[in-house]
Amino acid sequence: MSDVLTKIEIISRPDRFDEFKRELVKIGVSGITVSNVFGAGLQKGFTELYRGVKKEINLYERLKIEIVVCKVPVQDVVDLACKILKTGKPGDGKIFVYPLTNAYKIRTGDEGCEALQHKD
Amino acid sequence: MSDVLTKIEIISRPDRFDEFKRELVKIGVSGITVSNVFGAGLQKGFTELYRGVKKEINLYERLKIEIVVCKVPVQDVVDLACKILKTGKPGDGKIFVYPLTNAYKIRTGDEGCEALQHKD
Amino acid sequence: MSDVLTKIEIISRPDRFDEFKRELVKIGVSGITVSNVFGAGLQKGFTELYRGVKKEINLYERLKIEIVVCKVPVQDVVDLACKILKTGKPGDGKIFVYPLTNAYKIRTGDEGCEALQHKD
Ligand SMILES: Nc1ncnc2c1ncn2[C@@H]1O[C@H](COP(=O)(O)OP(=O)(O)OP(=O)(O)O)[C@@H](O)[C@H]1O
Ligand SMILES: Nc1ncnc2c1ncn2[C@@H]1O[C@H](COP(=O)(O)OP(=O)(O)OP(=O)(O)O)[C@@H](O)[C@H]1O
Ligand SMILES: Nc1ncnc2c1ncn2[C@@H]1O[C@H](COP(=O)(O)OP(=O)(O)OP(=O)(O)O)[C@@H](O)[C@H]1O
Ligand SMILES: [Mg+2]
Ligand SMILES: [Mg+2]
Ligand SMILES: [Mg+2]
Repeated sequence: MSDVLTKIEIISRPDRFDEFKRELVKIGVSGITVSNVFGAGLQKGFTELYRGVKKEINLYERLKIEIVVCKVPVQDVVDLACKILKTGKPGDGKIFVYPLTNAYKIRTGDEGCEALQHKD
Repeated sequence: MSDVLTKIEIISRPDRFDEFKRELVKIGVSGITVSNVFGAGLQKGFTELYRGVKKEINLYERLKIEIVVCKVPVQDVVDLACKILKTGKPGDGKIFVYPLTNAYKIRTGDEGCEALQHKD
Repeated sequence: MSDVLTKIEIISRPDRFDEFKRELVKIGVSGITVSNVFGAGLQKGFTELYRGVKKEINLYERLKIEIVVCKVPVQDVVDLACKILKTGKPGDGKIFVYPLTNAYKIRTGDEGCEALQHKD
C-alpha cells in the first residue's frame, strides 16, 4: 500500500460540532468518530486563584473528533476546524495529526485509500 | 528499541464483541482497550431522506477496540476482525492501523515488545 | 515543521490520577486529555477459575491519559508515570508512545511545538 493515510484528531468544545460536521461533508470527508473526553490545559499550575480561593484545576468536558483522510487534504480539514471552532477565547482546543500505516473497510475488505471511499 | 509495535484500532458495532475477544486470545493477543464512541459515515451528505422527511445524519453508537501488537502479526488481527465483525451490511466498520515508537509495562518497567508479554 | 511531537498514552487505574496530574505540571507538561475506557489483559485465556467457577474475563474500568509533548522529554513523562502509577500489583497499566506529524492551537493557529506553548 502506498496511499498516505492521516488521522486528524480535534479536541474542542461541543458547541459548534453540528456546523463543523456539515462543513466536513462539503470538503469530502467520508466519516468521523466522536467521543467524550475531559481535558485541561495545565498552564496555571495545579492550583489557581479563583475568587481569591485556591482550587484544583478542573478537567473540562471536551469532544474528541477523529477524522481519517486519504484523498482529502489534511490542510483542508485543519483550516476548516480553525475556521469553525475558533472563538478566540482560551480553550478553543487543539488539533493533533498522526500517520497511519493502513486502513480497511470491514464490509468489503477494501484497503488503504479505498477503505475510505463510498461506492454504492 | 528495534521492536516493531503497531496499534490496530477497530470501530464497529458492539454485537459480536464477546466472540471477537475470545478469538483474539487464541491468536495470542495479550490485551485490549475498549471505549464507547459515536460514529458516522458521511456519504449521504448532511441530510438524507428518511420516510420522505429530510433529517440530520445521526451518529451511531460504536465500540472502539484498540489492540497493540508486537509478536502477533498485524494481518492476523485484521483478518480476524474482518471475519468475525463482517455482516455484509453497511456500518460494519473500519480498521485503522498506526505505528508506535515504544511501549512500557508500568508494573515491571519492561519496554518494547517485552511490555506486551505475560510472564508469571 | 521540523519539531518532533510525540503522544504518550497511559492506560492505568484511576486511583493516583490527581497526584500524577500535579506532578506533570512540575515537569512542564502543558495539557492532558483524559477518557474512560475498559481494558483487559487477556493472559489467562477467555475463562478463568474464580472461586472454583469458570467465568468470562471481565473488562475493568481504566483511565486513558493522553499527553502530547514537544519540548518536554518523552522519557520524563514515562519515568513519572512509572513512578507514580506503579503499585507492583497486576493491572498497573501500560504506556504507549506514538509519533505525531503536526499539532495546532485552534485559538491562535500556532503550529508544531508552538501549539503546545502557553504565552499569555
Ligand atoms: N499537551 C496536550 N496533550 C494532550 N491534550 C492536550 C494538550 N494540551 C491541550 N490538550 C487538550 O486540548 C484541550 C483544549 O486545550 P486548550 O485549547 O485549552 O489549549 P491551550 O493551549 O490552553 O489553548 P488556549 O490558550 O487557547 O486555552 C484540553 O482540554 C485538552 O483536552
Ligand atoms: N474517515 C473516517 N474517519 C474516522 N472515522 C471513520 C471514518 N469513516 C468511518 N469511521 C468510523 O467507522 C464507523 C463505521 O463506518 P462504516 O462501516 O459505516 O464505514 P462505511 O465506509 O460507511 O462502510 P459501509 O459502506 O459498510 O457502511 C463509523 O461509525 C465511524 O465511527
Ligand atoms: N496489547 C494491548 N493492547 C491494547 N491495550 C492493552 C494491551 N495490553 C494491555 N492493555 C490495556 O492496558 C491495561 C492495563 O494492562 P495490564 O497492566 O493489566 O497489563 P499486563 O500486561 O496484564 O500487566 P500486569 O501483568 O502488571 O497486569 C488493560 O486494562 C488494557 O486496557
Ligand atoms: Mg487552555
Ligand atoms: Mg457506513
Ligand atoms: Mg494485567
